[in-house]
Amino acid sequence: MGTMQWAETTESRGVLEQGFRIELEGRDVPGILWRAEDAAESAPLVLIGHGGTQHKRSGYVLSLARMLARHHGIASFAIDGPGHGERSTGEDFETTWARDSIYDEMVADWRAALDAVVAEQAPSSIGYWGLSMGTMMGVPVVAAEPRIQVALLGLMGFGRLNGDRLRADAPRVSCPVRFLLQWDDELIDRQGGLDLFAALSSEVKSLHANPGRHSAVPPQEFRDTVGFLAAYLTA
Amino acid sequence: MGTMQWAETTESRGVLEQGFRIELEGRDVPGILWRAEDAAESAPLVLIGHGGTQHKRSGYVLSLARMLARHHGIASFAIDGPGHGERSTGEDFETTWARDSIYDEMVADWRAALDAVVAEQAPSSIGYWGLSMGTMMGVPVVAAEPRIQVALLGLMGFGRLNGDRLRADAPRVSCPVRFLLQWDDELIDRQGGLDLFAALSSEVKSLHANPGRHSAVPPQEFRDTVGFLAAYLTA
Repeated sequence: MGTMQWAETTESRGVLEQGFRIELEGRDVPGILWRAEDAAESAPLVLIGHGGTQHKRSGYVLSLARMLARHHGIASFAIDGPGHGERSTGEDFETTWARDSIYDEMVADWRAALDAVVAEQAPSSIGYWGLSMGTMMGVPVVAAEPRIQVALLGLMGFGRLNGDRLRADAPRVSCPVRFLLQWDDELIDRQGGLDLFAALSSEVKSLHANPGRHSAVPPQEFRDTVGFLAAYLTA
Repeated sequence: MGTMQWAETTESRGVLEQGFRIELEGRDVPGILWRAEDAAESAPLVLIGHGGTQHKRSGYVLSLARMLARHHGIASFAIDGPGHGERSTGEDFETTWARDSIYDEMVADWRAALDAVVAEQAPSSIGYWGLSMGTMMGVPVVAAEPRIQVALLGLMGFGRLNGDRLRADAPRVSCPVRFLLQWDDELIDRQGGLDLFAALSSEVKSLHANPGRHSAVPPQEFRDTVGFLAAYLTA
């Protein structure tokens, strides 16, 4: 487990937000934890993996975290992915993700953050939410982390940058999964996405495909991801 | 419109059930109408198309009709498809569906039944539910019937028997659609199903794919079809 520091807690309409920072193998990993002010002890927890060019407090990450907390009393945390948010170094996306060690480091970052949050919160159940780069991170993280019981993934496939690692890890994902796919995705090859869905070992998994480009996930489909996770985590 | 006769009404836990019979172009088309005992006048209406070897009162048809009525106050009706249920002649499925006139006759049957039910019930909104052979019927019916505002389809693709008609009619379907696909369907080619989904013109459409064989639609996915239709029909 890395060394963890917590920042001050702020509150917004019933949701507590607290920054944290983990030092791990020389890396400085900043994150944010959200939880309902009136949540039960040991509330369920969701790891939120942001997409490429986004960060731990991008609009939709914040929106998800608040929906989870307000509607279901579920806590969540996000960390900046490699080269993103406060960890930006100017290096481009492809260069970052082409480094040999990047997947192992990224998984270690998430697990260290999860260890630290679990030590504080003792969640009753744990899920993962991540689309696009959030699935590039999520497949290896969920494959490595038996504590994760349900995952919302999608907008990603076996591609040039990540094909080897995702092909290796997808069959190690065995928890229930909902997988979103945009039928007219201009960034992610449709067949590569279908192949990634097919490669997950999960006995319970659903592909939800909708028309439109990469970033055009229908608002209802996006909101329904919260209910999907909640159904498993609060059962 | 064909000539219609109604049978007596029976009741089961708040759901009224009434058989009917339409004579049309020399065909005798039997059907059943379900509605909630306490439904509002002009309740929404769903056409339920049964699957191959099934009939208008198969277990899952009855279950759907009762869920629609009890949970949402939505009326529904089913008719026996060509060569099915009371219309069975001993002719096999392939022979029935290979007849040149079969699609036009089937569409005429559904429209005659819809006309008759609309004349009695004046529904506020209309949807279609049909999987497998229910989609072989549903695509042409929804394509032909501007009164249908939303459709639940699936477990069907462009195949040997129906390819020409479904390829012609799929682009004429433009209402919101949810389309179910069983990833390991032993009867329906996966790519044929994806191609049928892709060919629908609907701006709002979602593919929901789950692992398993043709008849192994997950119970929750099945139940969710009711909520999907209700969200559109009772909005």
